[in-house]
Amino acid sequence: MKNWLNVSDLHDFSIHNLPYGVFMDGDTPSICMAIGDDILNLRKAAALGIFDGLNIDTSVFQSEILNDFISTGKASWSAFRAFIQNALCDENSAIYANREALLTPQEGAKMLLPLHIGDYTDFYSSIEHATNVGKMFRDPANALLPNWRHIPVGYHGRASSIVVSGTDIKRPSGQTLPPDATAPVYGPTKRLDFELEMAFVVGKSTELGDQVSTTDAEDHIFGMTVFNDWSARDIQKWEYVPLGPFLAKNFASTISPWIVTMEALEPFRCESVKQDPEVLPYLKYEGDKNFDINLEVDLTPEGKSAATICKSNFKYMYWNMAQQLAHHTVNGCNINVGDMMASGTISGKDENSYGSMLELCWGGKKDIALNDGETRKFILDGDTITMRAFCENDSVRVGFGESIGKIVG
Amino acid sequence: MKNWLNVSDLHDFSIHNLPYGVFMDGDTPSICMAIGDDILNLRKAAALGIFDGLNIDTSVFQSEILNDFISTGKASWSAFRAFIQNALCDENSAIYANREALLTPQEGAKMLLPLHIGDYTDFYSSIEHATNVGKMFRDPANALLPNWRHIPVGYHGRASSIVVSGTDIKRPSGQTLPPDATAPVYGPTKRLDFELEMAFVVGKSTELGDQVSTTDAEDHIFGMTVFNDWSARDIQKWEYVPLGPFLAKNFASTISPWIVTMEALEPFRCESVKQDPEVLPYLKYEGDKNFDINLEVDLTPEGKSAATICKSNFKYMYWNMAQQLAHHTVNGCNINVGDMMASGTISGKDENSYGSMLELCWGGKKDIALNDGETRKFILDGDTITMRAFCENDSVRVGFGESIGKIVG
Repeated sequence: MKNWLNVSDLHDFSIHNLPYGVFMDGDTPSICMAIGDDILNLRKAAALGIFDGLNIDTSVFQSEILNDFISTGKASWSAFRAFIQNALCDENSAIYANREALLTPQEGAKMLLPLHIGDYTDFYSSIEHATNVGKMFRDPANALLPNWRHIPVGYHGRASSIVVSGTDIKRPSGQTLPPDATAPVYGPTKRLDFELEMAFVVGKSTELGDQVSTTDAEDHIFGMTVFNDWSARDIQKWEYVPLGPFLAKNFASTISPWIVTMEALEPFRCESVKQDPEVLPYLKYEGDKNFDINLEVDLTPEGKSAATICKSNFKYMYWNMAQQLAHHTVNGCNINVGDMMASGTISGKDENSYGSMLELCWGGKKDIALNDGETRKFILDGDTITMRAFCENDSVRVGFGESIGKIVG
Repeated sequence: MKNWLNVSDLHDFSIHNLPYGVFMDGDTPSICMAIGDDILNLRKAAALGIFDGLNIDTSVFQSEILNDFISTGKASWSAFRAFIQNALCDENSAIYANREALLTPQEGAKMLLPLHIGDYTDFYSSIEHATNVGKMFRDPANALLPNWRHIPVGYHGRASSIVVSGTDIKRPSGQTLPPDATAPVYGPTKRLDFELEMAFVVGKSTELGDQVSTTDAEDHIFGMTVFNDWSARDIQKWEYVPLGPFLAKNFASTISPWIVTMEALEPFRCESVKQDPEVLPYLKYEGDKNFDINLEVDLTPEGKSAATICKSNFKYMYWNMAQQLAHHTVNGCNINVGDMMASGTISGKDENSYGSMLELCWGGKKDIALNDGETRKFILDGDTITMRAFCENDSVRVGFGESIGKIVG
């Protein structure tokens, strides 16, 4: 689509994308969009009165987080996106006239966590991941638990420790039970891992007692982001029975700085995995509810070159987001704008598509090859994990940017 | 202590208590304290300039929640409490002069959820409860799992569905696997239960990466409240392996409207349960870290009289709050003012001290006697659950008020 910035349709942040974020403009956290290699300052544009003709309370752009804008609703998101797309194609637009004040290079900009995340839920919706973990942690012959094909299994995680890409992550300490030991020991985790996930952001709240159907679910989803659910496998193994993972996960999760809207993802809808056995009626759905999103993970040792150690795809998910949301609310649990719901680790069938080092090194049994003969089983101090996500067809690309985190000792 | 309201030292809301809450004053949510049968309006007192001489930013009392006041810190909580205690004993005080404007009867007042709860954690710290559940859900011969005596086991819960006492609770629906069935069914829970818990409110935030020692832990605790962790046992049984309880719990939790400060609980410190085996160094502590808090649960069928079906005590807890907080942060997980951390069900040794109906009816094997020959195994529609907590010695009583919830179909 021809635009005055001459951003290619195959750029991650093409005019077909326009994801939202928050960056530091001088001393002021500012709501913004990514376009090409630039940041479009929506706070400043609103202050200049550029959005005054739109049917939207422009004070939402003066907030330090996206929640108020998201609360304006789906019709508003759509109208606002169309306005920006048109303005970026029109040299008579007010944005063009103020382009020097409104555009900042992404390079060197400080991005902030763009949301107040009230509650964070993590699902476990990749059948390949659940099967792989079941084989390693439990029983290879019965890797999937009896409930797995009936329920999009999920659990609550820690909202406070979700950080934005670029935040260093301190190696967590905790209790573990060493092999063959009878009593636990305390110390830094020896099995630090990532989990390659995508997360969606709730765009419409419900009241306690409300249920959201699979048909209505997508009206409650604002957009998506890349999500690294850092995990300490040795802590997890010792703590997780019977109430689930806790300290193994809640020391940090890293999201990419941009929230890609569902509207931008429309061209990349695809069929979901066939579910067998048939699910209960409240989990049935119509139409294509999955999305073809390419996923990659790089591991970069300190001072070395990046090695891509995983290539996966969000379309491998057994349970889709509409089912996750219908399940989450079937008991009347209320959701709020800004809540984050992550997919769980996204693994595919091929070994190089496994979305965690636990799976890639098969529980420590084999080496993961990096560059220059270097290998890993789990993450070492100084290593950086970079996750990328993008959708692409012949004519259009929509990228999510990166979730980057370096481990410090 | 002689005071001009003539509130007895043995009143739940004696002058030795002074718990914080938020009530609806006309159309205005107002921060307040309980004193005797009355509410003291702190928002209005601050607006009258009554706290201007204190070393505290009085704008915190204009908030609709307690978080800003709590953020002023432990020295401030203590100074403010002393100021109010003195004023309630002094007929020359500004509060006495304005008493008609500042006092409202508790009876008929609408109380609100007094906090923004960023994250909610539920522990599992009563050895009697963990043993009882282990016997019923797992293996009677090995009821306690291997990690239980080494770790104050906990998991993340849903913050959005924590409601204040008096809120009706809709019976949740969900998936269950009926006995002897091979496939799950959908419908309202048939095993709706309460869990008798106490929760503490975080009073001092930490940064990601910080650890809180057992020595410092109490500086991070503002106060405590009564906590009903409503549970759907049939949903729980089908969903909870391997990632823990989710929909069985997140449909609602009910807190009492008053937050009792740790300073008010000082006279009721007591020894903790002896821990065997010895815990790891980061979980060791000195001094009395438990509290003697009497707990009671009433079940009131619609239109009938209340029957007290459980009498327990917070002092039965195997793991204390300082240990819970040290464990929660040992991996660097950050905590925020207003976070809520619940104890887990508090059961004692005697059968009438079991803190859930699951335990009281022993998994459905026996009836729980109510009044007039009526019985229950689990909660029916129309039933109201009332939890009460209070501390008492020969001279002083400190009560928490009640957590009340009625189940509607």
